[in-house]
Amino acid sequence: MEPLHIQSCYPPQYQCCYGCGVSNPQALGVATFWDGAVGRATFTPKPEHTAVPGFVYGGLLASLVDCHGVATAAAAIADDPRHPPRLVTASLQVQFLCPTPLGPPLELTARLTERRGRKAVVQVEISVQGSVTVRGEVVAAPIPAHMAHQAAPSSPSAPLTD
Amino acid sequence: MEPLHIQSCYPPQYQCCYGCGVSNPQALGVATFWDGAVGRATFTPKPEHTAVPGFVYGGLLASLVDCHGVATAAAAIADDPRHPPRLVTASLQVQFLCPTPLGPPLELTARLTERRGRKAVVQVEISVQGSVTVRGEVVAAPIPAHMAHQAAPSSPSAPLTD
Repeated sequence: MEPLHIQSCYPPQYQCCYGCGVSNPQALGVATFWDGAVGRATFTPKPEHTAVPGFVYGGLLASLVDCHGVATAAAAIADDPRHPPRLVTASLQVQFLCPTPLGPPLELTARLTERRGRKAVVQVEISVQGSVTVRGEVVAAPIPAHMAHQAAPSSPSAPLTD
Repeated sequence: MEPLHIQSCYPPQYQCCYGCGVSNPQALGVATFWDGAVGRATFTPKPEHTAVPGFVYGGLLASLVDCHGVATAAAAIADDPRHPPRLVTASLQVQFLCPTPLGPPLELTARLTERRGRKAVVQVEISVQGSVTVRGEVVAAPIPAHMAHQAAPSSPSAPLTD
């Protein structure tokens, strides 16, 4: 199949994400392409996305793992990946195997590895110039009903459980 | 003791972090205050830091856990917290207990809970209006020698091990 840009397939009201939302002009611009088996993305950090001089900020790498993992989960569990559900992140793990140099494009891959009830588990890798520098795991869950209502609650509630 | 702003105590060459660097004009501006036992920070996300309408982006929350956890680790293990070492993140775990509403200030606390060889483990909590919405764990490690040399290597290397 022709790879699908998953974030552009999200329902319009859920396209505002700071990491990957196609309708958020200040978004980082993570774009996940799904080929039916693997989610792939390429991302080139900006000069300001630094941790210490010459290396990529870990929080940015975590953000890439998050958005790319959730989009891959949505595509993988969708009846039709052209209409993926909008999932949210229940948990995120990121291992920084070695420092990620700032400059070259980062290549991301993600694969669905497990279903846990209504949750989906995705493994993500970030590579630079052919070497894996980051491994991540995202547990994605259906969007809670009160988030779907598009209004902030007066106080936190609705645990992200199955 | 008067709470110390840890990121302003980092060596000048390590103050450029995109999350918390006091010399990076585009930084998010995470500021960790250390009182001798607990790291505390307050952060108010901007309107663009959204996941879906009304809620904070998970990658931003992961970034807060990262910078605040590393700074707390540095302060906690320093001989003199006025001169903290610049640590880096070896791994990061974030649990999104419930959606975090976008708007109110976020309150962060962090505590050193374990030493693993040269690594330091810190538990971080993010609260909104008195309720914990995010729990995180950061494993911080001494900055690898080749990162300290302030030049990007030609390829990734130097695993972040003890």
